[in-house]
Amino acid sequence: MFRFEVVHRSKVSKARVGKIHTSHGVIDTPNFVGVGTNGTMKALDSQMVESIGLQLMFCNTYHLLLQPGPDVVYKAGGLHAFMKRSMPIITDSGGFQVFSLAYGSIADEIKGKGKKKRGQMVLKIDEEGVLFRSYRDGSLVSLTPENSVAAQKKLGADIIIPLDELPPFHLSERKLHYSLERTHRWEKRSLEEHLKNPAEQAMYAVIHGGLDPELRKKSCVYLRSLPFDGFAIGGSLGQLKEDMLDILTYTMPHLPEEQPNHLLGIGDLLSLDRCIPLGIDTFDSSYPTKAARHGLFFTKNGGIKIWRAANKEHLKPIEEGCTCYTCTHYTLAYLHHLFKAREIAGYTLASIHNLHFMVRLMEGIREKILNDVI
Amino acid sequence: MFRFEVVHRSKVSKARVGKIHTSHGVIDTPNFVGVGTNGTMKALDSQMVESIGLQLMFCNTYHLLLQPGPDVVYKAGGLHAFMKRSMPIITDSGGFQVFSLAYGSIADEIKGKGKKKRGQMVLKIDEEGVLFRSYRDGSLVSLTPENSVAAQKKLGADIIIPLDELPPFHLSERKLHYSLERTHRWEKRSLEEHLKNPAEQAMYAVIHGGLDPELRKKSCVYLRSLPFDGFAIGGSLGQLKEDMLDILTYTMPHLPEEQPNHLLGIGDLLSLDRCIPLGIDTFDSSYPTKAARHGLFFTKNGGIKIWRAANKEHLKPIEEGCTCYTCTHYTLAYLHHLFKAREIAGYTLASIHNLHFMVRLMEGIREKILNDVI
Repeated sequence: MFRFEVVHRSKVSKARVGKIHTSHGVIDTPNFVGVGTNGTMKALDSQMVESIGLQLMFCNTYHLLLQPGPDVVYKAGGLHAFMKRSMPIITDSGGFQVFSLAYGSIADEIKGKGKKKRGQMVLKIDEEGVLFRSYRDGSLVSLTPENSVAAQKKLGADIIIPLDELPPFHLSERKLHYSLERTHRWEKRSLEEHLKNPAEQAMYAVIHGGLDPELRKKSCVYLRSLPFDGFAIGGSLGQLKEDMLDILTYTMPHLPEEQPNHLLGIGDLLSLDRCIPLGIDTFDSSYPTKAARHGLFFTKNGGIKIWRAANKEHLKPIEEGCTCYTCTHYTLAYLHHLFKAREIAGYTLASIHNLHFMVRLMEGIREKILNDVI
Repeated sequence: MFRFEVVHRSKVSKARVGKIHTSHGVIDTPNFVGVGTNGTMKALDSQMVESIGLQLMFCNTYHLLLQPGPDVVYKAGGLHAFMKRSMPIITDSGGFQVFSLAYGSIADEIKGKGKKKRGQMVLKIDEEGVLFRSYRDGSLVSLTPENSVAAQKKLGADIIIPLDELPPFHLSERKLHYSLERTHRWEKRSLEEHLKNPAEQAMYAVIHGGLDPELRKKSCVYLRSLPFDGFAIGGSLGQLKEDMLDILTYTMPHLPEEQPNHLLGIGDLLSLDRCIPLGIDTFDSSYPTKAARHGLFFTKNGGIKIWRAANKEHLKPIEEGCTCYTCTHYTLAYLHHLFKAREIAGYTLASIHNLHFMVRLMEGIREKILNDVI
């Protein structure tokens, strides 16, 4: 069922317009992938997310593993049935969150924050996998390539991800190399587990290698040699946006043009502008909905900070001409009031607008690529 | 425009089915009135509330006075336009919250809680009105019969309430009598202010008199002598449900049968069952939506506590046959998960169900009265 179709290649960049066909429908690319960690986009229900037209949603296996557990989801008929979503879903392996617990996130490391007590939650990392404590009930949980895939089989997303190690940002070359080799072994084991029962799921490899061009190339060459359905770009993307663009510039040519790719955890507007011409197909980020809940509304002319007093009597929608549910019903003045009164409805209406903005933005970007403007 | 029509009087009780006609449509009675303190039902937006069919919504002048302020709402075209509600709205005078600050709520008093520091927020209560400090910015705010009505004119609800004093629960007969006399003077001043510019608004008097039958009767007789459009029953209703029923039993016969009445702040299921046969037309309460946010779902067979582990794998809707948005899309298992993961969407879906339950419950009650079963 899973199939990637390139509809058009830009004449002015590496950007392309494509269609990822899945058993739950098509994902037009390039596209933004909304993050619904716990099986819901925060402050939105699945019907609203579908009516906005978000074609791919990212759920986190780590969270779903601990609550409600993959067995509950499996009994419900998989994530689509459980959360009542008819459109495509992607899940990750759970590794990212576990290694963030072990090493701290890259953002924490860059900002000089310590590991705090989180390191104590991860008890063992070895060839087999990772052993950690549930933050919910303190129980011991083991995450291996095989059981991560088994969990993702129960969740039943359209696209799944093999277990990888997220090494710390500052790592010696020798340790980074060692981590890459182990990640490759874990990804191969994950793929083998997946191929025992593909069940209409596709698996994307995760390209690692940190900031090292040779390791990135090596990762591409190795993972291309295995029958993955697509490629996600993961691991440390550096401290600055320029680092990330450098990595993508030397990594992308080593990925097969006939397969889809995904940039993990990046979705800010500037990155989209810069990465799409390099050929990235999909991006996931919780930023648009998180920004919404903090009162930052996206518009074509930049962000609107809803908390600002200037919005108190602003009887216009967030953006003139916007066709989202929020803009067709409510004014900035009302949204300002809901935020000032800390009303939940404000977070919902804000999230609707920003998500709608991202979906329409990507439509416009695809149109520009079709016209060879990007 | 405002008009009350009695459609049917029960042959077995004082219950009646009626229609309150307003310039924003009809309110069928008996009915439940949802509380949207800040100009929104918590966790719901106005379109959802209308689609559920809630015919009357109660907003609090005290809260709207302090945020966003009546001038902002007036510039938006009134509360209906501001919050995008096309159906009827009722506002109170603001007095209830101010006197709860001064004296503590009756519930606090019954539970033996002290006044804490709230008393310091109210600086003066005299014949003119009340002077208090805004909890938002510490500024001094004066609430008088005239400016409460002026604020309610700017808010533009279909039904408004005169300023009254909410005396403490334990009060000497002399002081209760004095408070009643002052409340009557305040209500008369409020009515006079209102009648300078009725603007299609109706004003309900508030019957006081605490637990004293003679004072309740006196309050009815006096307030009936003034051209109010309806009667709300306020003040202390006692400590026990039986106290409340006693008060209503001796108060209701003193109210005119051809005018609508409202029981302030009461809306639990048991009270509805007991009060409707006494002739109460409308009830407001935040309980159904508050219970929803705490994970208590209403059904014909009693409440479901969503937190209970029994719901973890329950792949049925909250109530079989329920036509609400939540029940037609989601299962108890998913709602249990959303609550466990503390996802905002859970509060919204729960609120939809409980509000829909109340609206359908009242439809059923009206049907029973029409059939002389209640």
